[in-house]
Amino acid sequence: MDPREIQTEANSDPNQSTHVYHLALDIGGSLAKLVYFTKDDDHFVDGEEGKSPRKALEKSKGRRNYPVLHGRLNFKKFETSKINDCIEFIKTMKLCLGGSQQQENPGSQPIALKATGGGAYVYTDLFKDRLGIILDKEDEMDCLVAGANFLLEVVPQEAFTYMGDQKQFVQIDQNELYPYLLVNIGSGVSMIKVEGDGKFERVSGTSIGGGTFWGLGKLLTKCKSFDELLELSYRGNNRAVDMLVGDIYGGMDYSKIGLSSTAIASSFGRAMSDNKDCKDYKPEDIARSLLRMISNNIGQISYLNALRFGLKRIFFGGFFIRRHPFTMDTLSVAVNFWSKGEAKAMFLRHEGFLGAMGAFMSSDKHGLKELLVNQVVQRTPNKLSFALDKIHGPLDGELNGDESIECSVYAA
Amino acid sequence: MDPREIQTEANSDPNQSTHVYHLALDIGGSLAKLVYFTKDDDHFVDGEEGKSPRKALEKSKGRRNYPVLHGRLNFKKFETSKINDCIEFIKTMKLCLGGSQQQENPGSQPIALKATGGGAYVYTDLFKDRLGIILDKEDEMDCLVAGANFLLEVVPQEAFTYMGDQKQFVQIDQNELYPYLLVNIGSGVSMIKVEGDGKFERVSGTSIGGGTFWGLGKLLTKCKSFDELLELSYRGNNRAVDMLVGDIYGGMDYSKIGLSSTAIASSFGRAMSDNKDCKDYKPEDIARSLLRMISNNIGQISYLNALRFGLKRIFFGGFFIRRHPFTMDTLSVAVNFWSKGEAKAMFLRHEGFLGAMGAFMSSDKHGLKELLVNQVVQRTPNKLSFALDKIHGPLDGELNGDESIECSVYAA
Repeated sequence: MDPREIQTEANSDPNQSTHVYHLALDIGGSLAKLVYFTKDDDHFVDGEEGKSPRKALEKSKGRRNYPVLHGRLNFKKFETSKINDCIEFIKTMKLCLGGSQQQENPGSQPIALKATGGGAYVYTDLFKDRLGIILDKEDEMDCLVAGANFLLEVVPQEAFTYMGDQKQFVQIDQNELYPYLLVNIGSGVSMIKVEGDGKFERVSGTSIGGGTFWGLGKLLTKCKSFDELLELSYRGNNRAVDMLVGDIYGGMDYSKIGLSSTAIASSFGRAMSDNKDCKDYKPEDIARSLLRMISNNIGQISYLNALRFGLKRIFFGGFFIRRHPFTMDTLSVAVNFWSKGEAKAMFLRHEGFLGAMGAFMSSDKHGLKELLVNQVVQRTPNKLSFALDKIHGPLDGELNGDESIECSVYAA
Repeated sequence: MDPREIQTEANSDPNQSTHVYHLALDIGGSLAKLVYFTKDDDHFVDGEEGKSPRKALEKSKGRRNYPVLHGRLNFKKFETSKINDCIEFIKTMKLCLGGSQQQENPGSQPIALKATGGGAYVYTDLFKDRLGIILDKEDEMDCLVAGANFLLEVVPQEAFTYMGDQKQFVQIDQNELYPYLLVNIGSGVSMIKVEGDGKFERVSGTSIGGGTFWGLGKLLTKCKSFDELLELSYRGNNRAVDMLVGDIYGGMDYSKIGLSSTAIASSFGRAMSDNKDCKDYKPEDIARSLLRMISNNIGQISYLNALRFGLKRIFFGGFFIRRHPFTMDTLSVAVNFWSKGEAKAMFLRHEGFLGAMGAFMSSDKHGLKELLVNQVVQRTPNKLSFALDKIHGPLDGELNGDESIECSVYAA
């Protein structure tokens, strides 16, 4: 069963709700991201009275004393400006947190959901009023790191390199994972040196991020959405807008300092002297130039920070990338160019859900004993709590970010 | 006599031309910069037949064997897109290079002028056709560094710091000048590690520079000039356009990682969710946001490069700055913030003329023996070739970049 079908059913018929055993949110400046677990073949609400999720747990074979829930980790996003859609979506679910269907039991104590990102503060009252849900706030950086570590340690083929249209999955030995630089590109950009679970420092960042791409893009083109702007950039040519080295040097390279004639000397520099208005440029050319400017800049600052701390691997996450080939290629080329091949840019399949995943993992500290995923992962690396069978949804061209991982959760 | 009066006279009446003993150009992507030397009280062409500049040289008192020319170093700029204005300006001058008025003697071998920047390549034919002048090309980085070194070594009060509306001149001991990071912000940005005269390496750069400010600014506002856009930014408030940390965190600081609520989380990020067109924003707010985004980014990348090579001083040059208080303050704050006070941002009074000054200095290698300025400076530091008396033109608010230094040139 495709989890997206579940979501569709859930949306179309509230009586046929999805049972969600665990759900966490990351509400950023642009996007609200959800990670939630649904159990397979879960019919206990359809007449199987009294059969709690706790009781529905199966004993795992060969893994003594760990009951297991087979199901899926689901990933879904909403625009933060349309937070009501997100609230409506959660409303259709049957939240079975801590083993009981608390949402259907309004008399009991309020449900608490793990939430991170600034929106966890901004929308506290809205979630309380509309859903009776308390947002239990987790630190954003803690969650980003926990989410990235979890995905990199547990999910096969989570990390890949991308350069010159070549994608290559990288299996990283857990013993060699740390230290690395995590670059999370949301509305703004955070750069975090990660040395282990819970061991990290936010060492840098830049305000030129996804919000700049979409904000400037919206002002400069007639685009209606981030994805439309991204799509446009596929067809554009930045040479129409940027001033290249060759434009300054009469078509020649500036070879003495290693700049080819096609290198960008000045982003949007051509617009200085062209006697043109915004509308005289093709929106696709503007989109392309913007994307290249921002990706290149992030790649450069990331490399400089990796260099500073002797980090050879840079993992890029956040919803700016959206598996967009040109974005990944630009980031990779920038890291490769500035590091002279010393550092490697890598990407994460669940790039946009690091914070939400981390918030999801954080619940073991707060009493959701059924889902002691993080502890299990950490303490029994041979008995991974998530036994992943397959990943749904194509990797390329999959821009909507909603997908699921089939998995089993061992509950303590 | 104010040299700008000379220029005005020269422009208004070609028969009353300025006698220029040495002139060099730096033709960049946006601006063409000129540095030239004029002698005071120079009447030799007005009937004093046969009195060549060579003969007019005075013997300097107490400086054996060095004849001296008293006069002025003049600085002037033109938009590269209006290169014809620059050519017309040079046309009005009487070039007395190498001791003879070659321009008035069309039968002799063609005049060669030192020139740097990409425009030296692009406009070779134009200068030849219109003025009969050969542009003798010098490497751009060589010139930037030679110009910066010369100004820092020779001109009193050339360098200053600027922070929180406080300007402070810095007199740097020549023995402590090196190494430093030179950041030249033109259309694009070059970052050069300078270890001494002729000892340097271009270590980094960014395409997000002055051309980006003016190019994007032109597309986003109705501004007609770079200076108008800069003026606008004085009155603007970037909060209308940028997404601040407080916007994401419900007005709160993100104190755990040291970000105040007023820190910019995402440049132009507010434009994502506002349901507004470009014209709905005040142009001054857009100008302010652009300027802050670009200055902050340059400050950050500069600092990271200074850190990488253990450089404590960063000198910012190039015509982007234009002594604009907010630009200088943003660059200084960025360097101070990221370096935690370890590195210092400094500015140069002749910021826009580093390349032209360097081209001017480079002529000693090519036979203009009368003006062996650089060699004299280097070899006899107690007998500076430029004895500067005063600098014309106010420092603050002086944006047009045309001014002069009164000086004496000792000729070998």
